[in-house]
Amino acid sequence: MNLICTQENLNKALNVVGKIINKNTTLPILNNILLKTDKGRLKLSSTNLELGINYWVGSKVEEEGEITVPTRLFANFISSLPNSNVEIKLKDDVLNIKCDKYKTNIKGLSAKEYPLIPKIEAEPVFKINNTEFKQALMQILPAVSSSESRIEITGIFLDLAKLSQNKIILVATDSYRLAEKTLTLKKENVNKEALNIAGNITSVIIPKNAVQELIRDLDDSENLLEVVISENQILFRFNNANMISRLLEGKYPDYKQIIPNQFRTEAIVNVEEISNAIRVAGLFVNVANNNIKLKAYPSSNILEVSSEASEIGSNNTKVEAEIKENILEMDKTDNNTKIEAEIKEAMYNYRYLSDGFGGIDGEKAILKINGEKLPTVLTSATDKDLIYVIMPVRA
Amino acid sequence: MNLICTQENLNKALNVVGKIINKNTTLPILNNILLKTDKGRLKLSSTNLELGINYWVGSKVEEEGEITVPTRLFANFISSLPNSNVEIKLKDDVLNIKCDKYKTNIKGLSAKEYPLIPKIEAEPVFKINNTEFKQALMQILPAVSSSESRIEITGIFLDLAKLSQNKIILVATDSYRLAEKTLTLKKENVNKEALNIAGNITSVIIPKNAVQELIRDLDDSENLLEVVISENQILFRFNNANMISRLLEGKYPDYKQIIPNQFRTEAIVNVEEISNAIRVAGLFVNVANNNIKLKAYPSSNILEVSSEASEIGSNNTKVEAEIKENILEMDKTDNNTKIEAEIKEAMYNYRYLSDGFGGIDGEKAILKINGEKLPTVLTSATDKDLIYVIMPVRA
Repeated sequence: MNLICTQENLNKALNVVGKIINKNTTLPILNNILLKTDKGRLKLSSTNLELGINYWVGSKVEEEGEITVPTRLFANFISSLPNSNVEIKLKDDVLNIKCDKYKTNIKGLSAKEYPLIPKIEAEPVFKINNTEFKQALMQILPAVSSSESRIEITGIFLDLAKLSQNKIILVATDSYRLAEKTLTLKKENVNKEALNIAGNITSVIIPKNAVQELIRDLDDSENLLEVVISENQILFRFNNANMISRLLEGKYPDYKQIIPNQFRTEAIVNVEEISNAIRVAGLFVNVANNNIKLKAYPSSNILEVSSEASEIGSNNTKVEAEIKENILEMDKTDNNTKIEAEIKEAMYNYRYLSDGFGGIDGEKAILKINGEKLPTVLTSATDKDLIYVIMPVRA
Repeated sequence: MNLICTQENLNKALNVVGKIINKNTTLPILNNILLKTDKGRLKLSSTNLELGINYWVGSKVEEEGEITVPTRLFANFISSLPNSNVEIKLKDDVLNIKCDKYKTNIKGLSAKEYPLIPKIEAEPVFKINNTEFKQALMQILPAVSSSESRIEITGIFLDLAKLSQNKIILVATDSYRLAEKTLTLKKENVNKEALNIAGNITSVIIPKNAVQELIRDLDDSENLLEVVISENQILFRFNNANMISRLLEGKYPDYKQIIPNQFRTEAIVNVEEISNAIRVAGLFVNVANNNIKLKAYPSSNILEVSSEASEIGSNNTKVEAEIKENILEMDKTDNNTKIEAEIKEAMYNYRYLSDGFGGIDGEKAILKINGEKLPTVLTSATDKDLIYVIMPVRA
């Protein structure tokens, strides 16, 4: 190997490829990065066996070759160099690097030992701009389950059933709360054929780690991200890189049924005001009781946020809200007085509430309360494509 | 207690008083902050028994009183409030706080249980502006010893012997490297009488924790900091606060004798260039060998920075330098050829080198190398008031 590239491009590549979190300590070569000349470019690759990333850097290649070197050392070294040309030469598994007045030798391990990163040779199913997909993933990521007991909900559900209407739906849940985001694609960015070729896939589950990695790697540009899907794997092609991840197995829960389509109390609130009130209420919770109460006062148009931890103290904040009431058919069969009091309030886990408002875009949020027995639905007043559902805590 | 103050002032006070690091878990009340009305102001106090801080907040006091409340909860709560008036009322050991639409009750513990923060009733020995003292402390702090085996070097030595010349000297060492900073005071800011009253004190040792706390609390203003000294304690009065700390006991080492006043090789280098070269060289050190070699090439005016860790690789960087040689009297009695090679290079602990250049003000640094047997001296080319001494590692 003998090549020249710029420090700037190499550093950009390492910011993507060099940051895969690798928990595998039994295979030390996974702490290395694979450098390989590839059709007049330098390809950098990294994998943790669950996902792999490739990144191509424009180079002047004098001699082909491949080697692996310790990722952190190589990345830290390159990031410390001045913005100038970097000369890379391989001699007997030692990488000689020269840049400006810096001369370095880094000991490598043979590329032969490095695990193969799989390829998918297929057409993209859809394309979407980097920043739009990144935003959507960030909004729903907090709702993904962290518990390994139900592996199928430890990823984001990508529903492709409405692709013929140019829509994709992203869903995350941990069974206590749920986030659903609908994205509308441009017609020319959808390729319905590709799915048929891949065996009539209508949905996939993308592991949480892959989503986190993608959020870190996608930039805030309008560049198109291409998504390629096979039965077991998903490939994201963006800028000069691609990332491939295995898919999660299992059947995603039929979540649609839990989203209520009727509501009893609706409160429109300023997102910043209620978020701050929730943060303050969060100071008065503890491990035993981390619940926050929301209570609507229709006559005074106030939503009260309160919490209490007996040994610390208590807090309550009145947030201005526009409140509407709506008695449902089902309530009429029940004791009406009792229902009327109940449907205006509910208790929620502090973190679920705080995550929910954290994902809301725009100035105002709409909160649809259904009492303590039915889920509460949260949306932005201006962007209804994101729905956040929280199951109240029963008193 | 019944008073009103502004959220802004209370929050400022808590940023100072609320951040004392408290390792004492046997006395839970130390996790609390003491609130007490004091001559028409609210006094906030905190202590970890080694040092204590008081901060006065202008208030409209309706009723006197005192209470202690959990520091973190109170500080987090106040910092979340809008910039408005805060009403504080005490009822049966519960603090009622109202601000804008926020209403909170925080359970307190009686002020009677809170340890007394000592007072020094004396005149300040000297005054100096906040930012100048803070900068000086920051420059020499890294050289303070962390080892508890020699307690007297775990603090900063404040030498007052030259106070009659309006100078104070701050010194830190861990016995491998040493930092000395001389500060020149304005004549009107020195009160020589005060020391005589305190029993002819010529120096004190300020504990590292107190120095760290002071660095955190001093702002970057020209406001005068007043320093009051007694036999066992030191008091810093700044802005609306004062901080009192015990002094360290023991005899500070006679450090003057180890600073060489002659040198064999002098190199003038750009601070940014050599700092970056040292950072890069630091990537190629490990636990067993964390040494970096500096070697001067007088004929080419180059200072070479290099390091090698057999299992990782090696690095060397050529930094432009202005190099002067100086054969000492003592060298002439020895084998001249051998000396000439030796005096141009030495090995240093990576961190000592990096801390040393980190403290240098100005564009250029002067490095005075004396071979591997005598200390190396580092100063700024423009500010000779800071001297950094490093003992080389013997090969």
